[in-house]
Amino acid sequence: MQTIFPESTLRTFTQNIFLAIGCSPEHAQLAADVLLKSDLRGIDSHGVARLNGYVRLWEKQRINPTPNIRVVHETPTTATVDGDAGLGLVVAPFAMQIAIQKAEIYGSGWVAIRNSNHFGIAGYHAMMAVEKDMIGFAMTNASPLVAPTFSNERMLGTNPMCYAFPAGKYPPVIVDMATSAAANGKLEIAQRSGKPVPEGWIQDANGQPVTDPHALKSGGSLLPLGSDREHGSHKGFGLSAAVDILSGVLSGANYGPWVPPFVAFMEPSANPPGQGIGHFVGAMRVDGFRPANEFKAHIDNWVERFKAAQTIDPAQKVIIPGEPELSAELDRIVNGIPLVGAVLDDLNVLAKRFGVEGL
Amino acid sequence: MQTIFPESTLRTFTQNIFLAIGCSPEHAQLAADVLLKSDLRGIDSHGVARLNGYVRLWEKQRINPTPNIRVVHETPTTATVDGDAGLGLVVAPFAMQIAIQKAEIYGSGWVAIRNSNHFGIAGYHAMMAVEKDMIGFAMTNASPLVAPTFSNERMLGTNPMCYAFPAGKYPPVIVDMATSAAANGKLEIAQRSGKPVPEGWIQDANGQPVTDPHALKSGGSLLPLGSDREHGSHKGFGLSAAVDILSGVLSGANYGPWVPPFVAFMEPSANPPGQGIGHFVGAMRVDGFRPANEFKAHIDNWVERFKAAQTIDPAQKVIIPGEPELSAELDRIVNGIPLVGAVLDDLNVLAKRFGVEGL
Repeated sequence: MQTIFPESTLRTFTQNIFLAIGCSPEHAQLAADVLLKSDLRGIDSHGVARLNGYVRLWEKQRINPTPNIRVVHETPTTATVDGDAGLGLVVAPFAMQIAIQKAEIYGSGWVAIRNSNHFGIAGYHAMMAVEKDMIGFAMTNASPLVAPTFSNERMLGTNPMCYAFPAGKYPPVIVDMATSAAANGKLEIAQRSGKPVPEGWIQDANGQPVTDPHALKSGGSLLPLGSDREHGSHKGFGLSAAVDILSGVLSGANYGPWVPPFVAFMEPSANPPGQGIGHFVGAMRVDGFRPANEFKAHIDNWVERFKAAQTIDPAQKVIIPGEPELSAELDRIVNGIPLVGAVLDDLNVLAKRFGVEGL
Repeated sequence: MQTIFPESTLRTFTQNIFLAIGCSPEHAQLAADVLLKSDLRGIDSHGVARLNGYVRLWEKQRINPTPNIRVVHETPTTATVDGDAGLGLVVAPFAMQIAIQKAEIYGSGWVAIRNSNHFGIAGYHAMMAVEKDMIGFAMTNASPLVAPTFSNERMLGTNPMCYAFPAGKYPPVIVDMATSAAANGKLEIAQRSGKPVPEGWIQDANGQPVTDPHALKSGGSLLPLGSDREHGSHKGFGLSAAVDILSGVLSGANYGPWVPPFVAFMEPSANPPGQGIGHFVGAMRVDGFRPANEFKAHIDNWVERFKAAQTIDPAQKVIIPGEPELSAELDRIVNGIPLVGAVLDDLNVLAKRFGVEGL
């Protein structure tokens, strides 16, 4: 039930759809690049599978295809960007460029973003810094799906955070993770297959642990990283809270349960405390701390030492953060990107509707 | 088996011990302040209970009581501090002051610290920023106790991280957490009581899940936040890796399994890749992003909304990060700090040895 497409085919298709909803050529190209990066890196939930979701939000006039993205507040190393309800896929790279420029001059740069939308994978934005021998940071709040410890109310998104570190001879170390026990994408896979999920991923509407992946559709919620109080779910909640505050409260975006839903069939809050969803990105020059070649040689040493760690199963080595995504990317650049039938159908409906060449 | 002491009694005692090992009056006062803050906030594992540990490291000449703490590398918003093998309790506040000064001028400030020792609770340092209407960050690597996902080798410390956010009418929001499933302090409590710990905290030397709190003494290891792969232990590992890289690799300190042990009876690595243990601290001015009164009003709104979240058990409200520590502090300032017998005995041995008035 999978069809494999060359990356370039999906890229052209995606650009054409973004052009069709009125994006500029530059924005269409950038937005497609962010989505394709996700597909290449094997994070299928955040790539072209979401294209239709963005289109639906545009239909509802919740995404502005021609945003006037601008800095509304600034110091030498900090800024707040108003995304003008644009695609997070173009708003976040705009903000990251500012962070990088500030870091080039002052050593570090930090940008909070409000009035934005879903920004794709955090890793895309953080990795922009790595190419410049900087450490990159990116995080975002998201539609409420996760209940804090002791609660059965959806108060937080899966609120991902990414740290990206340049290496020398090895690939960069990329920690890109949801702060929930399971990413929503993993739950969607279980829902499609109808298989139970491990206890500790979700709870039902009454806050009882369940393994039915559909419990989320009947008032259930995702659990924070740690799963329950005994195993540190208050830490997952705390991390998610930090992401929410940096992304939402600091920028003037919405936060907590007021973050607008990504799905077009759910209406945003009537009286939200902020504008759109929020992100937070940053960059620090490695040579603001020690010479870049020294840092990178030690990162290489770090990677080698962790790869050589004693393992429980000799066949399963320790995985360096970012390694699985990179090996997916190297494979998919050559061998193409698989799409499941439902996603392909969805994209072809879009193609017909906008008079774009189908897949 | 507990004796309660007024905070001021323990403070004077602790200062006297630091003076006795040769610290300057300023350093003795500051180091005592960090330890007492931990005891006041109910984090008994990181307070005066550790005083003897610092003394033992001083005996081994691994702690320098009269360090020449200095900036060795700098840009307008970044710096690297060499702690000259001093107490982390005084090195980290020195670095945090630099971060705050940089933030005052440029909006943000970030300091990596090498050649240091255990810095107490991360929260102490991050909270220094909050008083200035800044967001504070603090993290540290630590003696290897935690195994990465798939490994049974101790490669990382419990590597805590703290985010501190100023609020308006409410107390600041303080996310201060180990990146392991359980903090080492909690394990020590279980070891003293001889009670089994929940599955998911530790594994034995073969990497099998166990509930015996003593398994750590026979080659076992702590597990990262998430406990196992299925519940996201790779995320806990990733966070811990980020803390290790920012604290150790970026600063020129040791990292991973080379971080010197806190206990004096274990020798540091013979050929370490860096100097001492590492920390990373930072500060960002809230008004670098939006007016501070606006931010603080929205933090208050955030706190109120999360306190009002629907709960599973009506008697157990959602806990705002930092709330339990603050209520301990308010109680202990008035009612004193309880010490268990073993800690009290330990401190009185120190008193006798240094000719300091006992407890």
